[in-house]
Amino acid sequence: MHNDTIVALATPSGSGAIAVIRLSGKAAIEIASKAFKSVSNKNLKKQATHTIHLGHIVDGDKTLDEVLVSVFKNPNSYTGEDVVEVSCHGSSYIQQEIIQLFLRLGCRMATAGEFTLRAFLNGKLDLSQAEAVADLISSDNAASHQIAMQQMRGGFSSEIAKLREELLNFASLIELELDFAEEDVEFADRTQFKELIERIRFVLKRLIDSFAVGNVIKNGIPVAIVGEPNVGKSTLLNALLNEDRAIVSEIAGTTRDTIEDEISIGGIGFRFIDTAGIRDTEDVVESIGIKKTFEKIEQSQVTMYLFDALKNINDLEIVRIEIEKIRNKYPQKPLLVIANKIDQLDDTQMAHINNAIADVLLLSAKTGFGVEQLTNSLLNLINTGALRNNETIVTNSRHYDALLKAFEEIQKVQHGLETGLSGDLLAIDIRQALYHFGEITGEITNDDLLGNIFANFCIGK
Amino acid sequence: MHNDTIVALATPSGSGAIAVIRLSGKAAIEIASKAFKSVSNKNLKKQATHTIHLGHIVDGDKTLDEVLVSVFKNPNSYTGEDVVEVSCHGSSYIQQEIIQLFLRLGCRMATAGEFTLRAFLNGKLDLSQAEAVADLISSDNAASHQIAMQQMRGGFSSEIAKLREELLNFASLIELELDFAEEDVEFADRTQFKELIERIRFVLKRLIDSFAVGNVIKNGIPVAIVGEPNVGKSTLLNALLNEDRAIVSEIAGTTRDTIEDEISIGGIGFRFIDTAGIRDTEDVVESIGIKKTFEKIEQSQVTMYLFDALKNINDLEIVRIEIEKIRNKYPQKPLLVIANKIDQLDDTQMAHINNAIADVLLLSAKTGFGVEQLTNSLLNLINTGALRNNETIVTNSRHYDALLKAFEEIQKVQHGLETGLSGDLLAIDIRQALYHFGEITGEITNDDLLGNIFANFCIGK
Repeated sequence: MHNDTIVALATPSGSGAIAVIRLSGKAAIEIASKAFKSVSNKNLKKQATHTIHLGHIVDGDKTLDEVLVSVFKNPNSYTGEDVVEVSCHGSSYIQQEIIQLFLRLGCRMATAGEFTLRAFLNGKLDLSQAEAVADLISSDNAASHQIAMQQMRGGFSSEIAKLREELLNFASLIELELDFAEEDVEFADRTQFKELIERIRFVLKRLIDSFAVGNVIKNGIPVAIVGEPNVGKSTLLNALLNEDRAIVSEIAGTTRDTIEDEISIGGIGFRFIDTAGIRDTEDVVESIGIKKTFEKIEQSQVTMYLFDALKNINDLEIVRIEIEKIRNKYPQKPLLVIANKIDQLDDTQMAHINNAIADVLLLSAKTGFGVEQLTNSLLNLINTGALRNNETIVTNSRHYDALLKAFEEIQKVQHGLETGLSGDLLAIDIRQALYHFGEITGEITNDDLLGNIFANFCIGK
Repeated sequence: MHNDTIVALATPSGSGAIAVIRLSGKAAIEIASKAFKSVSNKNLKKQATHTIHLGHIVDGDKTLDEVLVSVFKNPNSYTGEDVVEVSCHGSSYIQQEIIQLFLRLGCRMATAGEFTLRAFLNGKLDLSQAEAVADLISSDNAASHQIAMQQMRGGFSSEIAKLREELLNFASLIELELDFAEEDVEFADRTQFKELIERIRFVLKRLIDSFAVGNVIKNGIPVAIVGEPNVGKSTLLNALLNEDRAIVSEIAGTTRDTIEDEISIGGIGFRFIDTAGIRDTEDVVESIGIKKTFEKIEQSQVTMYLFDALKNINDLEIVRIEIEKIRNKYPQKPLLVIANKIDQLDDTQMAHINNAIADVLLLSAKTGFGVEQLTNSLLNLINTGALRNNETIVTNSRHYDALLKAFEEIQKVQHGLETGLSGDLLAIDIRQALYHFGEITGEITNDDLLGNIFANFCIGK
């Protein structure tokens, strides 16, 4: 696998000023030099690592582009192999032509995450650091960025590695005892060992508990916006997004497809899900939308119910019934009730709504009144304490699984110590716990696991 | 203007493996070094040009990302100034944080095309080469790429510059004559001069004529696809695009918004414009769509009229009337008449359609039958001879305008020579022609012109 040279576009697809095409492998510099011509006839193979060279990418007598070529020599590169980065003009056409030229010259198209996989296999990063690279790229708010950055710099790995090493020392001592079983010696101090196990149990518990917050931070909190057609759901979404993503029109039922978008409030991502209005309809396309509305409430963690304050001012009983319906159907789910379009109401009308509907939030998506209060209500729904304390937070469900399994084994060890379990049986449980620690950092891997992890990467990383 | 340092994202926006942020100006290296920390405490200011450095971008005690920083020292950079390129992880969040950090450290956000504008002002490229950079980035097929590449490498400029120089020589001689006016000498050989003017006129004529082809190549040929609802316009578009861009459904009138997409056939871009069906309707959204249909026919160079072969098999007279209507309204516009869904017809029915409708193209968007014949018909509509001969082709309307004006002046000079116009009057027309030549390459510019040209660039180039 390591014998071939891979190529991929490393920058986002689409048009821009420049794009970067990355090659990695034994023949990277050789292949790049076949396509590279500079005025002074530079030989890329003779250039020092970490240097940049101006020239043209040529395919026979056809010039594809004027480019800058960066040369990185193994082991001083991202992958640990020879790497060449070609910085070309950012036209999709040029990107494709250059990549196709490199494929003809002997490169293979990189699979998703293959550059980082090679970096892991060449010992440039451990597995949890490699996973953090993908998290870092997909981070879109301060919190998820901070966690990924911490993990990529080894924060999480080193905490696990330290516990693993201490546990390994005790395991060795206990296994040594087994060799002297007939002499009934104890090399491993049982009191110190109990303390260590308790400490490990405590750290594991904290890491496992952090996953709930970590998951929310990594994936964002899904929030469904529901209500009758034309109550201003799209306008509210736009006010929240502060830009025009959804189609807003005066015609009821314009929003046919559910639109998802994410904003960052206080460093936390919220995914707002706009939906077609809840109403009976004969329209085929629209009724698909309504089915989606209920599906989206199911999928969301928070529901925002919007109604038209002006239109319903003499009809608040109906609104109350609708709210009751949602509350009865989803009693566990936080529901924010919002009276929209209050810019069209007078003070008496507003007071009337406040009295009639419990915990209603008065808002005008159009003027922006009440939007800040709404974002504060959303923020209060999650506990961001751990984030503020700069603690290690687990965001990766693979790590979470391994930690849970390690925790289970550590509890067995603890129980064994308390009940005076024999050293040979203790050793088995300790080995199991060590195995699960090793899964996190990649000391213990298998091809399926690696395949799963790197398939989630983008191509070019 | 040259005293400040500009910053922008150079790669396409969005998520990818990596992104590149570019700084240019006197303080580029100074500013970058303030945010850069490497393990070995490298000082960026002391590094050689065209070298790459691994480290972190830090904002106080907060690490934003692990990056590679490339250093280019003036004049050996794209802009001719000191340039720093920061290659960071491709998360939008990280991109924004790093750019904002550089702004706080003293950079200014670059305006559209400002890097290339600086390259022009610093003499790294002439104006038509700078314009070719934008064309190159937006090129999306072989033909437009070839033209932009040729222009960027100076093909067009050098042709114009050569003519300009020869003309300038004669202009000098004629102006010299004016100094000796009383002695009635002729330094400029009138026969040679006539030959030169004829040669210039010929070249200008060819360049001007190439604009029609060039325009088509650069912008693509707009093709309107029209017909009754549900005749398979979207399916045909998909067959042509070979992918599912438009929403295809069984419900008539699904296509609400006009969808534009471009495919490259034989190196030429065609922009296919799908439209809402032509029919009377009460639906507000739909009737906006129908208005757009006629607008789109007006805007397109070619119209494709689709009808449902099966549904209309006993009703071909109506189809014929509709075709007649379009032909009468747009007599100059090529019209391709297409009978779709012929996979549902037998041979007799197909023969019947062939007899009833002149020049009808039998097609099945579903099976792909006839699609190749359709693309061939489209290709035949434009003359690609010039492209095959590798001639210089004018694609830029600013160049076209300047060439037209220069041509006008050259014709005046030619007329003046034939009618024995005096040297002083000849000199005025020659100066005017030289002025328009200079406009193309940028020897003669003004701020408004530069502003207009570079405003069409993307930010970061």
